[in-house]
Amino acid sequence: MLRLICNNSFSIVWKCNRNMLMSTTPQIAEEVSKLLDLKAQLENREENGCSHKLILKTPKGTRDYNPEQMALRLGVLEKIISVFKRHGAETIDTPVFELKDVLTGKYGEDSKLIYDLKDQGGEILALRYDLTVPFARYLAMNKISSIKRYHIAKVYRRDNPATTKGRYREFYQCDFDIAGQYDPMLPDAECIRVMSEALQMLDLESYLIKVNHRSLLDGIFAACGVPQSKFRSICSAVDKLDKSPWEEVKKEMIEEKGLDEHIADKIGNYVSQSGGIELITELRKDKELMRQSAAVQGLDSMELLLKYCSIYKVLDKIKFDLSLARGLDYYTGVIYEAVLCGDGIDVGSIAGGGRYDNLVGMFDNKNKNVPCVGVSLGVERIFSVLEARLANKGLKTRTNEIEVFVASAQKNLHEPRMKILVDLWEAGVKAEQSYKKNAKLLAQLQHCEENKIPLAIIIGESELAKGEVTLRIVSSREEIRVSRSNLIEEIRKLLKTS
Amino acid sequence: MLRLICNNSFSIVWKCNRNMLMSTTPQIAEEVSKLLDLKAQLENREENGCSHKLILKTPKGTRDYNPEQMALRLGVLEKIISVFKRHGAETIDTPVFELKDVLTGKYGEDSKLIYDLKDQGGEILALRYDLTVPFARYLAMNKISSIKRYHIAKVYRRDNPATTKGRYREFYQCDFDIAGQYDPMLPDAECIRVMSEALQMLDLESYLIKVNHRSLLDGIFAACGVPQSKFRSICSAVDKLDKSPWEEVKKEMIEEKGLDEHIADKIGNYVSQSGGIELITELRKDKELMRQSAAVQGLDSMELLLKYCSIYKVLDKIKFDLSLARGLDYYTGVIYEAVLCGDGIDVGSIAGGGRYDNLVGMFDNKNKNVPCVGVSLGVERIFSVLEARLANKGLKTRTNEIEVFVASAQKNLHEPRMKILVDLWEAGVKAEQSYKKNAKLLAQLQHCEENKIPLAIIIGESELAKGEVTLRIVSSREEIRVSRSNLIEEIRKLLKTS
Repeated sequence: MLRLICNNSFSIVWKCNRNMLMSTTPQIAEEVSKLLDLKAQLENREENGCSHKLILKTPKGTRDYNPEQMALRLGVLEKIISVFKRHGAETIDTPVFELKDVLTGKYGEDSKLIYDLKDQGGEILALRYDLTVPFARYLAMNKISSIKRYHIAKVYRRDNPATTKGRYREFYQCDFDIAGQYDPMLPDAECIRVMSEALQMLDLESYLIKVNHRSLLDGIFAACGVPQSKFRSICSAVDKLDKSPWEEVKKEMIEEKGLDEHIADKIGNYVSQSGGIELITELRKDKELMRQSAAVQGLDSMELLLKYCSIYKVLDKIKFDLSLARGLDYYTGVIYEAVLCGDGIDVGSIAGGGRYDNLVGMFDNKNKNVPCVGVSLGVERIFSVLEARLANKGLKTRTNEIEVFVASAQKNLHEPRMKILVDLWEAGVKAEQSYKKNAKLLAQLQHCEENKIPLAIIIGESELAKGEVTLRIVSSREEIRVSRSNLIEEIRKLLKTS
Repeated sequence: MLRLICNNSFSIVWKCNRNMLMSTTPQIAEEVSKLLDLKAQLENREENGCSHKLILKTPKGTRDYNPEQMALRLGVLEKIISVFKRHGAETIDTPVFELKDVLTGKYGEDSKLIYDLKDQGGEILALRYDLTVPFARYLAMNKISSIKRYHIAKVYRRDNPATTKGRYREFYQCDFDIAGQYDPMLPDAECIRVMSEALQMLDLESYLIKVNHRSLLDGIFAACGVPQSKFRSICSAVDKLDKSPWEEVKKEMIEEKGLDEHIADKIGNYVSQSGGIELITELRKDKELMRQSAAVQGLDSMELLLKYCSIYKVLDKIKFDLSLARGLDYYTGVIYEAVLCGDGIDVGSIAGGGRYDNLVGMFDNKNKNVPCVGVSLGVERIFSVLEARLANKGLKTRTNEIEVFVASAQKNLHEPRMKILVDLWEAGVKAEQSYKKNAKLLAQLQHCEENKIPLAIIIGESELAKGEVTLRIVSSREEIRVSRSNLIEEIRKLLKTS
């Protein structure tokens, strides 16, 4: 019934076109308008699903989560939320789509990846690309000047994803952000601590947190002779160093972004450097760099940040890396990114963030800013890593929490089963039965073992007549007789010990 | 910076148009194509946000949830999930959008409310309208023949919502469904029990569950002389009886749907009836109706359902209501709907569902069906009711879970504060500090009282020198001296008792 046959509207369109060609010129405008209407109708028809077979799939770059995957995912999210709550975050939610204008001009080169909704009359909308811009819009709209919030929700990017590497077009982000006018680096260092605690909680073997500062990068660009108008686009190029070799990035700087070769080489010299606190000392000796106030300010900030990271016991995870640039336009201060190392699976960056002090102001009529810093965890990649690990170990997770299965040993006992069930439910016990009136006892008990249900109640006519039931401990197959009136109590006792 | 000025592209378009009018006919097709390109560019420009001011709002029919609302919402969802789990449901998730074809032909008159995504090259997509159709698609795609699952997620409808009544264009649904070939009414009765348990859990004062059966409705329509081709559209008309008086519905049947007046009157006679088990006995006496096998089958099913509902202790909540029709096309058996009564707030239907045995088959190449029955809770309306109630009582909810605030009584003690903080976090204690180095002590303590944080640690130079801190119980303002080495232990003790 889904495969209706379209009228061949093309022929109508072309007939109309020929008529148009024969008519006198003043009529052309009208005919063009008709043509456009017909074309729109035709497109509409096609979208309504005629003339092509129904393909049974999820949209490109998306996936369903089955119960096993959901159990894993909810476990991961719960751990992350516990870290966010340990740091005092409240949570908010925003709509999955925003007015298109809200997203425009925030993402630089990545804007082309935004999903637009169709104009069906009314507002022009687009799916959210991240949780940061909606957060900034929320702060400006509600005139909130300080908040510490987490937000876990799906975001959308029309990327060409390598789904094998855990990249999707629809994916969850877990964001923690601190907004407010505060003393330098106190919130920033806590964000790094939060990121580190979350990764630690997830037991992801070794990870490394790269940190850098946008002001320091700007200072470096200035010291190398990059004109200020090209700072952001050169920053974008540097950002590609985690995926491409320097030679390619250099080529982009020269050929696409019009930099002189000797300037590119100077930049290459800087961004190849990384280390710890000693790198700060090293850079302070660079007189050319120290003439740039942005660089001085960036280094001072980095020094304070690393000191706080040491107090917060995360310094051993940190690498001060001058090649870290972050793609998005809105960062203004410290930037950081966590990468997994080891574990055999290359998933690249799994968390990142930084300071964005001017984003809220872009939504305020008087440009009033609220300084913000935050971190975003890319949990899809974490799921992929954990799924692969579970698959390797051949482990299976329980996907429901049933405590008691109510079985019957003879035919036509479904009503007594139901009477027991409702008592269990009213006592808050998680319980189920077969939806077949006369399921075989063996099948019922097998269901219990396969699904790791701890207890089974087995009823038979003779026991019922005596006001008793059999209670079976599924794992040991041990069975005891229990009086109907003690049943709930007995179950509670056994569930505690099992 | 968001208010760029558009070039007046209109003038380009019209100039081009005039050129076109002057050219010879063979060139017209080419010029039309250019015109279309320019038009597309212009549209693109407008969508990219130029020439109109940024309006700071969420899209029509949507809303942000602030931390207080989120706390309430998460509490409600947790209760609902606990009911679903008590009945053994696992959970799945599906993408927020589907191939448009998946949604086509499933929703009858409501299809016009589907949100389409823009065709940006690639697949034609639309936002999900409910969770039932994606569930059926999931079953067919993965060849699953039995599952009991819950799914809590947002769905999208381009309705003209009365947001004051808790109706939105983006809203959460909480669905519980049982799929599989089972014995009659066993899963159906459990769905009604689940709906009732969930509403009971939410403490929503009195509610009523209307039940009916699509076969019985079909039998009634046949007995009244409605031609079979009009069953679904007459069913749609009956569905409006909860909002419109009979006179209006009758008018729709006669004028829009072409029914004879005497047939409409006969229908009116039936659908005005409601009651309990006795209504079944009454209807069985109706010889004309009993000639319709669909009606006999519907009544038999209703009788069994009500018997099971009695065992499941929900019969006192149930009203057998012949006017209940449910709007969606896909129902094939029992249908039900819960309405709130009393509480002073008119929110209408807050949950509903029914049996849909043919939906999965629509996605299967060989039309293989998986019978399903389910219930969907409309939590937005429940949130509205609970929010109104909280507002009436002037109650405020805690929006974070901080247990300990680390304060300092003198200047420049932020580093010792941070050292204590990191110990607390590593011990799993939920703790925070001011992000200002030298916040006033009074302000810090006020923050604790306002946010109902149970404990505060206060550090001062002299205590630090002695290896001690002050621990303050915020509610009683009682303070004790604790040695730094016993701090965590002492806090755990106090948190247990407070």
